Amino acid sequence: MTTKILLFFSFLLTGPALFAADPLPADGDDGYRLWLKYEPVINASVKAEYLRFTAFVGNASKGEIVKSAAVELKTGLKNLLGKSVSVTNSFGNKTGGIVLRLDASNDQQDEGYHIALAGGNIVVSSKSESGILYGTFALLRHMQMQLPIENLKVASSPKVRYRMLNHWDNVDGTVERGYAGSSLWKWYELPEVIDPRYQDYARANASLGINGTVLNNVNASARFMSQEYIVKVAAIADVMRKYGIKTYLSVYFAAPKTLGGLSTSDPLDPQVRAWWKEKVAQIYKEIPDFGGFLVKANSEGEPGPQDYGRTHAEGANMLAEAFKPYEGIVIWRAFVYKADPRADRFKAAYEEFVPLDGKFDPKVIVQVKNGPIDFQPREPFSPLFGNMPKTPLGVEFQITQEYLGFAAHAVYEAPIFKECLNSDTYVNGQGSSVARVVDGSLHGYSRTLMAGVANTGSDRNWTGHPLAQANWYAFGRLSWDHELSSEQIAREWTALTLTRNQKAAESIVLLMLRSREIYVDYNTPLGLSRPWMGVHFAPEPWQNKGSRPDWTAVYYHRADSSGLGFDRTASGSNALAQYQPQVQKQWNNPDKTPLPYLLWFHHVRWDEKLSTGRTLWEELCTRFYTGADSVSWMRQQWDMAKGSLDEQIYASVAQRLEVQHREAIWWRDAWVLYLQTFARQTVPAGFEPPRQTLEEVKKSVNVYLIR
Amino acid sequence: MTTKILLFFSFLLTGPALFAADPLPADGDDGYRLWLKYEPVINASVKAEYLRFTAFVGNASKGEIVKSAAVELKTGLKNLLGKSVSVTNSFGNKTGGIVLRLDASNDQQDEGYHIALAGGNIVVSSKSESGILYGTFALLRHMQMQLPIENLKVASSPKVRYRMLNHWDNVDGTVERGYAGSSLWKWYELPEVIDPRYQDYARANASLGINGTVLNNVNASARFMSQEYIVKVAAIADVMRKYGIKTYLSVYFAAPKTLGGLSTSDPLDPQVRAWWKEKVAQIYKEIPDFGGFLVKANSEGEPGPQDYGRTHAEGANMLAEAFKPYEGIVIWRAFVYKADPRADRFKAAYEEFVPLDGKFDPKVIVQVKNGPIDFQPREPFSPLFGNMPKTPLGVEFQITQEYLGFAAHAVYEAPIFKECLNSDTYVNGQGSSVARVVDGSLHGYSRTLMAGVANTGSDRNWTGHPLAQANWYAFGRLSWDHELSSEQIAREWTALTLTRNQKAAESIVLLMLRSREIYVDYNTPLGLSRPWMGVHFAPEPWQNKGSRPDWTAVYYHRADSSGLGFDRTASGSNALAQYQPQVQKQWNNPDKTPLPYLLWFHHVRWDEKLSTGRTLWEELCTRFYTGADSVSWMRQQWDMAKGSLDEQIYASVAQRLEVQHREAIWWRDAWVLYLQTFARQTVPAGFEPPRQTLEEVKKSVNVYLIR
Repeated sequence: MTTKILLFFSFLLTGPALFAADPLPADGDDGYRLWLKYEPVINASVKAEYLRFTAFVGNASKGEIVKSAAVELKTGLKNLLGKSVSVTNSFGNKTGGIVLRLDASNDQQDEGYHIALAGGNIVVSSKSESGILYGTFALLRHMQMQLPIENLKVASSPKVRYRMLNHWDNVDGTVERGYAGSSLWKWYELPEVIDPRYQDYARANASLGINGTVLNNVNASARFMSQEYIVKVAAIADVMRKYGIKTYLSVYFAAPKTLGGLSTSDPLDPQVRAWWKEKVAQIYKEIPDFGGFLVKANSEGEPGPQDYGRTHAEGANMLAEAFKPYEGIVIWRAFVYKADPRADRFKAAYEEFVPLDGKFDPKVIVQVKNGPIDFQPREPFSPLFGNMPKTPLGVEFQITQEYLGFAAHAVYEAPIFKECLNSDTYVNGQGSSVARVVDGSLHGYSRTLMAGVANTGSDRNWTGHPLAQANWYAFGRLSWDHELSSEQIAREWTALTLTRNQKAAESIVLLMLRSREIYVDYNTPLGLSRPWMGVHFAPEPWQNKGSRPDWTAVYYHRADSSGLGFDRTASGSNALAQYQPQVQKQWNNPDKTPLPYLLWFHHVRWDEKLSTGRTLWEELCTRFYTGADSVSWMRQQWDMAKGSLDEQIYASVAQRLEVQHREAIWWRDAWVLYLQTFARQTVPAGFEPPRQTLEEVKKSVNVYLIR
Repeated sequence: MTTKILLFFSFLLTGPALFAADPLPADGDDGYRLWLKYEPVINASVKAEYLRFTAFVGNASKGEIVKSAAVELKTGLKNLLGKSVSVTNSFGNKTGGIVLRLDASNDQQDEGYHIALAGGNIVVSSKSESGILYGTFALLRHMQMQLPIENLKVASSPKVRYRMLNHWDNVDGTVERGYAGSSLWKWYELPEVIDPRYQDYARANASLGINGTVLNNVNASARFMSQEYIVKVAAIADVMRKYGIKTYLSVYFAAPKTLGGLSTSDPLDPQVRAWWKEKVAQIYKEIPDFGGFLVKANSEGEPGPQDYGRTHAEGANMLAEAFKPYEGIVIWRAFVYKADPRADRFKAAYEEFVPLDGKFDPKVIVQVKNGPIDFQPREPFSPLFGNMPKTPLGVEFQITQEYLGFAAHAVYEAPIFKECLNSDTYVNGQGSSVARVVDGSLHGYSRTLMAGVANTGSDRNWTGHPLAQANWYAFGRLSWDHELSSEQIAREWTALTLTRNQKAAESIVLLMLRSREIYVDYNTPLGLSRPWMGVHFAPEPWQNKGSRPDWTAVYYHRADSSGLGFDRTASGSNALAQYQPQVQKQWNNPDKTPLPYLLWFHHVRWDEKLSTGRTLWEELCTRFYTGADSVSWMRQQWDMAKGSLDEQIYASVAQRLEVQHREAIWWRDAWVLYLQTFARQTVPAGFEPPRQTLEEVKKSVNVYLIR
């Protein structure tokens, strides 16, 4: 352990900002340290205040998680205050230190913590080791932000029990929908080679309160169920454990056949049930605190119980049974839809799962994407939320920017997450927010879950786009406390990661807070969506061929000579009927439907006058153009921060904003030129018509589709 | 430019070793700086000597490559000596500096250089800017090794004209046969986002004398011929240019059809010829110093001229014609073989290409893999070398460890490269080495080429395995001067990269020098080969099914109840006839054939007594076992260096050697158990029989082949 800790220290220490002597002090931050930079406290009075508590770090526990907390404190204080503080187990009545105290009588939940001044010490206390670690990171965050410590009194508990990242990392080292290099997990080198990044990954997650990680893609390889891979996974789990993080695996439902050599994978087959029981036992032999399974079944070609005429519940319960002797759980994804041209994909998950409410084993959590389709720039909340009172529903957000411009576009996602969490399902009357479904307060779920599809990769700065680190940060913070505001999180992250200059921070935070609406405007305004096949960063609204109808663009936007949009009212697919009446009321009437959701639910005539006084066509053009133009505003905002943040990070983001600007115009032109063929109207006065033709745009997109 | 240089400086400066104040000075070297660490000179007298030449860096030229040299010197001197030296264009008769001098009368070749003491300065002079850059790096290498500079006098010229890396990087960011993360090239973010790594990549190559890079996989995407991608490539070329590196592209021969929309890609079709002409012109508009094309045609399913009944020469010459107005060249790979069960793949390239000798345009270089098959741990030299006197033949080495254990096994490759280069073809009598074919001295080629398939990726340390950096280094150094010895290169690299401790260096160099033979012993002893399909890091000697016969293992080792090996004498495929009589003489007679090549040319009876006094079966077992055991010796050698090198690098290599040890035993057992089914003999006394059964080994391998 010590070696590893030393190794990890050295990582922090390579950070240039730690060296006052460095001739280029602020230069060349490679972004590796994320929000744990621990740069020297410059406010003299605050520093003096902090120094009063550096006599010792008192840790009476022998637990390895508390040890991680103590080590983190040592590192943090050394770098924040330039003082080496020793960790002691026997501090008696000493004062002037920081005490980590396991405290069964703590009034917070298991993972919750208190931070307070007591007996001349700063005391971080919790019922659990993890709570102490979270409290320690909270204290260090407090110090990084140079906040006063007098009257310090914090009490905090997580609102959700399972706070986890889902990695869509493949066994071959690629990452599905990953835009930051290759997978963090080096399967060919494990179990012997322990990349120091594993520990820094664990630190970063623990600092946010994330307590679980699913290492592999939901389109899962059966290899992970082999002893060869279980010991590799165990080696990673050994690192995660020290930071209170449980390790989970996605499973391939047909593994009993492909790996086990059985003739079937039927969940009701005794041999299959026995195989999974044995398999789970085998895993627990190597990973005593194994977290559980995540399953994508009968979805997009993945095998599942329906291959044998069984239900999702029967499949999930079979696995849950295998976990009976253990702590582990089964997380079953509700992301299912059939290739039916007449059906509305929007309704599929509800139709499949609501009838199963109450049929799932208590060890099963059903994981529901925030929206009914697929992580679009804007989606209404999934109608499943609130409609399965007897089944714990977890929410799945996508942190990686599959539909948000990959690593080239700056889109701060907290507002996306919050938009879903704050949506009112009205299932138990007003105030039945998705957040209250997810945190269990509405239906009294004992197992609650918030999952985020990770945006991490092997790139040195973890996320490719420097600002994408904020999305990892925001997801983690919200999984602990979904009541935090997008702005508060943005301010925190900016202060910890980018700059302490107030003016610079203001302009960056403003950029972040507006970035999502700007993206929606040039990408999918007024409730357009784009879950089409092909490369997900290029515009293809014309795409009308696919191996299945719901894998084309035209299936979703339904553009025709009369208008645009998907009628989901009673006159159409009637997907709206899946929501409570109060929700239907918001979205039923095209004249009253908020514009951001308009085309999600209505087919609107091109010349329909909207609440803005513009026709649909005019409003679309206005959004596309102002959206693209707003990227220049983002660039100005970013440039205002120049000189107040690291040069390398400044340049990287400035260059990416340049890409974003070019591609925003690309999107704008693609949509405008394509929709124009239906609307047969000119671009409204005041906007310069696209310089390129539709054919030219198509050609530029097709380049990305050829071998 | 300046900004970028500053950015890059900061990279170097993040190196911990530069900070004497650093409490953990030696810790946490992440390997990013490669052999350009510029750690402080500790030998006081040497330092004093160097300091005598730090009054200024004199650079009278305005060229950007010389500017790069000056900047590198500034960085190097700052870090080596802690002295900031200013660069001046007007140094008149000043002394005590380092002068970079363009000198038309220089007696070295264009890219060659002189380093000498003159007029109280160190003078680096060359006919060309590149020469000055190479001389500068040579001087810095000299200083990094703390060698005296009194009577410093160096004159050096490259023996080969085109010294280049071939990247097998795909357009989707993956790297074919890459084991160090994803591609360095971020196509979705280019051309706007210029990753600082591009410049550090250029520096590393220039420091070795590499002057060309092929950015994309030979299994090429046609996208690179689109304007969208040409501007992306141009952005990288702009960085390479500053370091004297030309940028090349691999091309998809069918691009005129798939991208250009023509009805054919027939090289004799006027439209096709016009399309390529235009395409090349379009490239030169964006990249005035574009290097040229690399082509894999009619090979492993890639399209080519033979699809239209044309020859490789007709295909290559068509492209060469498009380059007529420019400096660029066409590099045409000779890696071709047909799926003919009765044929010997060994003979394919010779049969296809020798008849074409003299038919290629002067702008074409034919690129030949070192051996006739495919980068095996040991191969005889390709019979093409020497047999195409009228056609410049370049050699292609594989730096990436496709057949050498990926990023988990330590195999120092200089001996592999040297073994091929030193092989005597005897085409013009004794002394007609492959090296003299490749450097043009034998047949007077005006265009000479040495190419290496890159082992670089996005991993922080560039190559995954820290010791694999030495293979990049060795290739580069040999491409400049193939007369350097493996040992000299290993000593250089170790001193520059790992440690200055003499004893530690000795044990590491010994480990490196023996590593290849050890690998061959446990992997493919006595001339076995393993170019089978499936995962190239796992043993599959039993693999007998493939989409084509020459994609199975049994096709190559020909194991049967009588014996083992591929008879390539007159009684067999007679591939030996492709070599000169003197070469045939070495390998014709099984009793006289050197054991390392035995099974390449002979089918040997299991109980045949070999020169060692052991039977074939006994000798095989002896090699497999001693090879695997020798990995523990490697681990001891490495441990002897502990404490004398960076802890993080120590740990990474120590852990990888652990993987290598486990996998060496895996290979040993797989071969021994499988061959035993034919030899029907027990493992010789003194060796412990494998603990696992053949079926168990097969199962452990199959895990890596299932989804």
